[in-house]
Amino acid sequence: MNGVKTGKTIVNGQCLNGTEVNGKVAHDTKLYVSVNGSLYPAKAKSRRQRWEVKPSEMANNTLNPIRAIVDGMKLTPNQDKPMISLSIGNVVENIQVDFHCTHEYSCVSACMHCKYSPCQSAGYLKSRQAVANFYSCPEAPLEAEDVILTSGCSQAIDLAISVLCNPGDNILVPCPGFSLYKTLAVSMGIQVKLYNLLPEKSWEINLQHMESLIDERTSCLIVTNPSNPCGSVFSKEHLLKILKVASRHCVPILADEIYNNMVFPGSHCPSIASLSSDVPILSCGGLAKRWLVPGWRMGWILIHDRNEIFGSEIRQGLVKLSQRILGACTIVQGALESILNNTPQSFYNNTICFLKCNSEICFNELSTVPGLCPIMPSGAMYLMVGIDMDHFPDFKNDVDFTERLVTEQSVFCLPASAFEYPNFFRIVVTVPEEMMVEACGRIREFCQRHYRPSSRDSNDLDQ
Amino acid sequence: MNGVKTGKTIVNGQCLNGTEVNGKVAHDTKLYVSVNGSLYPAKAKSRRQRWEVKPSEMANNTLNPIRAIVDGMKLTPNQDKPMISLSIGNVVENIQVDFHCTHEYSCVSACMHCKYSPCQSAGYLKSRQAVANFYSCPEAPLEAEDVILTSGCSQAIDLAISVLCNPGDNILVPCPGFSLYKTLAVSMGIQVKLYNLLPEKSWEINLQHMESLIDERTSCLIVTNPSNPCGSVFSKEHLLKILKVASRHCVPILADEIYNNMVFPGSHCPSIASLSSDVPILSCGGLAKRWLVPGWRMGWILIHDRNEIFGSEIRQGLVKLSQRILGACTIVQGALESILNNTPQSFYNNTICFLKCNSEICFNELSTVPGLCPIMPSGAMYLMVGIDMDHFPDFKNDVDFTERLVTEQSVFCLPASAFEYPNFFRIVVTVPEEMMVEACGRIREFCQRHYRPSSRDSNDLDQ
Ligand SMILES: Cc1ncc(COP(=O)(O)O)c(C=O)c1O
Ligand SMILES: Cc1ncc(COP(=O)(O)O)c(C=O)c1O
Repeated sequence: MNGVKTGKTIVNGQCLNGTEVNGKVAHDTKLYVSVNGSLYPAKAKSRRQRWEVKPSEMANNTLNPIRAIVDGMKLTPNQDKPMISLSIGNVVENIQVDFHCTHEYSCVSACMHCKYSPCQSAGYLKSRQAVANFYSCPEAPLEAEDVILTSGCSQAIDLAISVLCNPGDNILVPCPGFSLYKTLAVSMGIQVKLYNLLPEKSWEINLQHMESLIDERTSCLIVTNPSNPCGSVFSKEHLLKILKVASRHCVPILADEIYNNMVFPGSHCPSIASLSSDVPILSCGGLAKRWLVPGWRMGWILIHDRNEIFGSEIRQGLVKLSQRILGACTIVQGALESILNNTPQSFYNNTICFLKCNSEICFNELSTVPGLCPIMPSGAMYLMVGIDMDHFPDFKNDVDFTERLVTEQSVFCLPASAFEYPNFFRIVVTVPEEMMVEACGRIREFCQRHYRPSSRDSNDLDQ
Repeated sequence: MNGVKTGKTIVNGQCLNGTEVNGKVAHDTKLYVSVNGSLYPAKAKSRRQRWEVKPSEMANNTLNPIRAIVDGMKLTPNQDKPMISLSIGNVVENIQVDFHCTHEYSCVSACMHCKYSPCQSAGYLKSRQAVANFYSCPEAPLEAEDVILTSGCSQAIDLAISVLCNPGDNILVPCPGFSLYKTLAVSMGIQVKLYNLLPEKSWEINLQHMESLIDERTSCLIVTNPSNPCGSVFSKEHLLKILKVASRHCVPILADEIYNNMVFPGSHCPSIASLSSDVPILSCGGLAKRWLVPGWRMGWILIHDRNEIFGSEIRQGLVKLSQRILGACTIVQGALESILNNTPQSFYNNTICFLKCNSEICFNELSTVPGLCPIMPSGAMYLMVGIDMDHFPDFKNDVDFTERLVTEQSVFCLPASAFEYPNFFRIVVTVPEEMMVEACGRIREFCQRHYRPSSRDSNDLDQ
């Protein structure tokens, strides 16, 4: 036997069944003729005559509303004022430095973690175990196999939606809410139904509205708690009511709990899974927010399924999906146990204290600005501010308002249209305190300049 | 104005247009009735009466042939022999330690890199620039904007296929070949057409077969060079012929060049993009192989489009897709420039020398084993071995063969059925030299025991 011989036999064999469709082999022998013992196609196929390469529909349907809106804005700051950006949730450097001193060593030693294997697409067992231990509680126990490590919470959400939903299904998403849910769902052909949050009730869910949207193609209910962009934290009672709706309609929950435990003193924030024993829940989280390392891309899914409704099928589905691109960076995986177990309480406290203090400054300042209506958060790192557009006839909408705020005052806040919630804007409270104060002062100046006591009258006069 | 007032107005507004389908607002006012000034659904919708949560079709269609085959194998090693795994491409620890000494410092300082922003979903500009500089050459110049950083080469391939192909399109994939292409494509509803490689020609592409598979729905041609699982390296002449086919049929190329530059002395391995000025090429690569850190999940796409065929649309499509889950870990991004620029030539040389030496040991040993036909690689870290099944009547196929090799000799090689190429197995040459020698000795013993000079006769006798 020699290589040539072995090769030939096999090549011809492969040639005959070379065409595969969705894993099924099509024996299209009729397409081939034998020439000198080799098989070639019987006739030329139609072929492209010129280059035409277009992005796929999935790429075209991947819409990031934040980018769509921000890219369309003319952001030309006032040259006389240094720019203050309150738009993106990057974290305060001084708290970060603390954290790095603590975890540099873990990361260095973790650099040695660089192997992978297809069996570990969901993460090292040791790291999964560390996450399980950290979040396990008597009401919602977790084992290592209940944890899937991912490249950031974004991939966790991607995998959770991917495993639960088929094209044509629909998912329920909070409004206002984090835009990624819709970005992912729409690109996969999944319908998005927005349920309303009630600003007058500290952004609780309008449960009747939410329930009214459920139909037989509703394959998951997304609950973000604490919330981006609202900074709201649901009470235990409210969470129980949400669970009741999910239970009544047999809809599994995707709980986005990336801001879990980032709540101001006085609020409690139980994980929704700890309050239910029947509703199957995929809880998505990660290091990005509470540990202030968004760029490290470490996320996870916690599988809560005490009633065996997901069963092994959904678990296996998640593992299979995780094998597509493999998960989190092993350096961070290697440091995970130490990060979770050795971060001093003071680090968490400092962060919370800082965020609460900044939120209060911002809320108190803006509460007395005519035409604005800030809503005090109870956690996370955001604060939503309503704009009474009637009193600001100079501006078409929240996008126009925030754009001009940059032009005149060099302060950039995200218009809440980016969260499907016009006439609000979102402030990220992670800038240093002095900057927060300065920004609020400039917003006040801006509003005072453009405020009209009764817009309808002034509109009439203008016209 | 107060919060309640602002809220109510907006909530009702949202309530009316709360239902969205693929980004289009459906004004389904007829579904709602006004009760005490609030809107509620006019009638109850049909709803699920019991729990039924099944994995999506996408999850079900995510098939990893390696896992499918390996999970189905009974891998019970011989207790008397320590296990030697030649199945997964993990890398030699001694070379790794070298590398870590060099790069620990870069990673520590890079730990400070932890911010993200939606504008940087494709990676820090500085890190993209470092990759561009590293791979740029006069024939195929690259700028930072031509580089998209990803979570491993796997995500690079995912994004490249996602941007180029729609469901119902087909892609051309080498056989034998890396299984991820098919795993990803099938899960997206993209048809896979396997083109044959010729073992008797050092695994060159059967160009006529490849060309015969192209039709008007062929949206990309995947070329893996150097190859997993073959370890083959294409000559410049062969690459030019491949380009000619792509050019004639106007099919863009996805070049999987993760093993780029991992070639044994004597071979040259130009990137395919450096040989063409008309064919648009997405070249996928990463740190995993040449820098021996698969777990760090750092990959990239190099966009070669000197004829403006991809144009801005494909670029924007890639950036949009990269925003779905964001890309690579910022720790590794921060270390990238130093890794690319400061890794000493001796590190690369040591790796190549080690892989070549092990490949030669393995090839020479197995060449003299009756019934086996190893094919000498010219690069990468793999070696394919043909099994003349006629001479091994004890075994049904390559899966059976490799399973029994574990049972009897505690040596695990991947059956090439996992690469759609039966009657071969793949050896990973990254184990220490002594282990390679020991493994080959055991494979010889195994084959000698089961070899039948003429299987057909012995089969006849058996029956
Ligand atoms: C509610 C929510 N979920 C998920 C994410 C994504 O987190 P990661 O950066 O870990 O992907 C964010 C980030 O802003 C978020 O606000
Ligand atoms: C040919 C080929 N492409 C891509 C990959 C994936 O690389 P990464 O680990 O960076 O995702 C591999 C890994 O084995 C490979 O062999």
